[in-house]
Amino acid sequence: MNAVPILLEQETSATETYNRDSVTAAEFYKGKIRSVPKVPIKTLADFSIWYTPGIAEVSRRISKDTSLSFEMTGRWNSVAILTDGTRVLGIGNVGPEAAMPVMEGKALLFNYLGGVNAVPIPIRVQDREAFFDVAKALEPSFGGFNLEDIESPKCFFLLEKLQKELEIPVWHDDQLGTASIILAGLYNALKITGKQLKDVRLVLLGSGAANVATAHLLKAAGFNMGNITLVDSKGILNPSREDMDSLMINNPWKYDLAMMTNSDRLTGGPAEAIRGADVVVSASRSDPGFMKQDWIRLMQDDPIIFALANPFPEIWPSKAKEAGARIVATGRGDFPNQINNSLVFPAVFRGVLDARAKGVNFDVMVTASREIAEFIKDPHEDRIVPNMGDWEMYPQVASAVAAKTSELGLSRVRGSRNQFLSTATEIIEENRRFYQKSVESGMVRELKEAGIIGKEY
Amino acid sequence: MNAVPILLEQETSATETYNRDSVTAAEFYKGKIRSVPKVPIKTLADFSIWYTPGIAEVSRRISKDTSLSFEMTGRWNSVAILTDGTRVLGIGNVGPEAAMPVMEGKALLFNYLGGVNAVPIPIRVQDREAFFDVAKALEPSFGGFNLEDIESPKCFFLLEKLQKELEIPVWHDDQLGTASIILAGLYNALKITGKQLKDVRLVLLGSGAANVATAHLLKAAGFNMGNITLVDSKGILNPSREDMDSLMINNPWKYDLAMMTNSDRLTGGPAEAIRGADVVVSASRSDPGFMKQDWIRLMQDDPIIFALANPFPEIWPSKAKEAGARIVATGRGDFPNQINNSLVFPAVFRGVLDARAKGVNFDVMVTASREIAEFIKDPHEDRIVPNMGDWEMYPQVASAVAAKTSELGLSRVRGSRNQFLSTATEIIEENRRFYQKSVESGMVRELKEAGIIGKEY
Repeated sequence: MNAVPILLEQETSATETYNRDSVTAAEFYKGKIRSVPKVPIKTLADFSIWYTPGIAEVSRRISKDTSLSFEMTGRWNSVAILTDGTRVLGIGNVGPEAAMPVMEGKALLFNYLGGVNAVPIPIRVQDREAFFDVAKALEPSFGGFNLEDIESPKCFFLLEKLQKELEIPVWHDDQLGTASIILAGLYNALKITGKQLKDVRLVLLGSGAANVATAHLLKAAGFNMGNITLVDSKGILNPSREDMDSLMINNPWKYDLAMMTNSDRLTGGPAEAIRGADVVVSASRSDPGFMKQDWIRLMQDDPIIFALANPFPEIWPSKAKEAGARIVATGRGDFPNQINNSLVFPAVFRGVLDARAKGVNFDVMVTASREIAEFIKDPHEDRIVPNMGDWEMYPQVASAVAAKTSELGLSRVRGSRNQFLSTATEIIEENRRFYQKSVESGMVRELKEAGIIGKEY
Repeated sequence: MNAVPILLEQETSATETYNRDSVTAAEFYKGKIRSVPKVPIKTLADFSIWYTPGIAEVSRRISKDTSLSFEMTGRWNSVAILTDGTRVLGIGNVGPEAAMPVMEGKALLFNYLGGVNAVPIPIRVQDREAFFDVAKALEPSFGGFNLEDIESPKCFFLLEKLQKELEIPVWHDDQLGTASIILAGLYNALKITGKQLKDVRLVLLGSGAANVATAHLLKAAGFNMGNITLVDSKGILNPSREDMDSLMINNPWKYDLAMMTNSDRLTGGPAEAIRGADVVVSASRSDPGFMKQDWIRLMQDDPIIFALANPFPEIWPSKAKEAGARIVATGRGDFPNQINNSLVFPAVFRGVLDARAKGVNFDVMVTASREIAEFIKDPHEDRIVPNMGDWEMYPQVASAVAAKTSELGLSRVRGSRNQFLSTATEIIEENRRFYQKSVESGMVRELKEAGIIGKEY
């Protein structure tokens, strides 16, 4: 019975170390990404082709065919990370300036894992319409948008409207990234337990950005929506709930789910929802006491538990296992089966960028999730998803995504899976080589220069 | 009498070569700038400080004091190059996609000469209010804005309103950059000819972005505005012109100049304006036959002619000299005295960024112009301004600008001229070193790989 407090204590101390070092490093490095010319400049006269007078001809050509902006400028590999800072990590509505360090971290992952030039752009806007207007204005400069850390339900509105109105892929990572890696994990968890996708009874605990998107993705993947139950802070979502009228107006995305899920018309709270279920996907409360062992004991055989709140899962893996869970996944890297968006977005964007895609949809995401799952050749209880060190996964998934957008007619360029695989591999490897060279040539200052010494991260 | 057609012919052929190579290079390199991490990543666990969980503490600190976003993120060195693509180079309203290659060239200059991380952001907006809204929304992400290639009078409105409403420096290079380098050139031209700033009679031919800004800068520099005459396509600007009512409404910036200049109430066209003047600054028509030798013959002794249209000056330097001009400047690199914005904006931004300035104004610009002029220790007829190869000028001007903003209370950090000089020098040199290392390590592909062989640029 000591397990929880001890883990909490270790966690607290580790978090304090991370916090302190993160602050020290932020003050020392002042940003995580730098720009560097990728073209040769031997003499200043070279600017005659990089700038005036020669560049006017490049502009003229693009003005006649704007799709050339993907072939004659950096747009093809450039993604804006857009946020209004209304729901940053676990700390809430801190505004755009305070969102910047997080977006910079995201840009680092984009670059390091996917070879993408990501530009962090926290914006100050009053409402969702203003956010939309800014994003639409920025479209010509980028090959894709990654929305991030935007409060719900605003994020649903923005994703839907931007996907509909823009001709570049728009992704909200807190929705789509999380949903994709959840689905990937589920594929392998079902395989291990021999459960069938169409029969499985699945509970989504929490109905914020991640679980709402997950529900829609499960639908696209062929899950039986009647067997799915959503639970929010007011209990099980069902069509006779008192707040349905308000949901219809303020959160139609959740309203739609209330109408299409839970065919048994269950009512009550988490306990009632989980009884008899095969799978629980919880993205609700960072509190390891939230999910009860008793709930798990009343599930079907071989319970599958995804307890994804950060930094603390809704139940510690050891407690879930003790109560009979066969497979447990969390959001953390210090337990097996980390459900981590970083396994998805760098690969998906590498793919849609290489295909010069006009959009991304749930069918493409199902392909991505399946590819991520199949990357694991021998899935077992403690390995249902890859980890960030599985480099070869990224070009694999990217090429599957690119080929799928090409097949669906969403891409500006067509290509085979193999062509996209070699493109993605080359870009990611060249990017990593570039970074390694810059490290080797002494241009990246070491942590110890910042006074961060002897740490093992 | 052969000079003009022969030069035109050479120019045409050179332009065709530039155009062709620029297109070839654009297709080969697909963008001119890349992102690269500037922080060490030895293992994936390092993301615990670059991203979650540690980064949340950095966000928390900035949320309590947003000015920390200049010290704990890359904002301090990041400038957005904003355009709506309505007046791109000499080719007009080509839209945001087609503006991108030009903005990328600008970003390259920002980086190469000033060590600035510049992000090219062409935007699609319907009107000036929408442009303003987008810029305002982007403010939290950047340390400054460089407006570029925006049609007049929209550019005047935007510069004025953004400078007033934002807490970062806003610069419109076609106005302020051009005006600054014109003033720098004038300082030395007046010194050489022994003319006094307060007495000089000066004609501004053309009243677009550059000359309107120049007029205002001349005022700040202490020129006698009554001795200045502006000429536009309708003739000499004066308070009794028929279009004054329309100007007051549509272009109050030009209206104000009509009221404060030309105390002799001259009327007529360029010839009438130039008669008896000391200086002509022409930014009007790319036609070497536009400015007549006869006009120059009727100027005061030691005429100073700035014929700045591109690609063709309003009169060839040889013709101007033949008619008696003592000093001739153009916009071109193949004649002496190139009036080139690239001598200004990388230095000014290095300065305002290092000072974390909240704004930039005409007083700061006068300082910049004077510093640029004084960089030339022995000004003579063929050297009134530096050239882009004068590396040492950039930190000199940057530090003068930074110290001036600090003196005026415009800066977030205070510092001495010497402190700012060492900061600017270090940043610019480190940036250049980084680029050189990336060239040496083979990460920048050579022009010959693109099939551009044996060229001397």
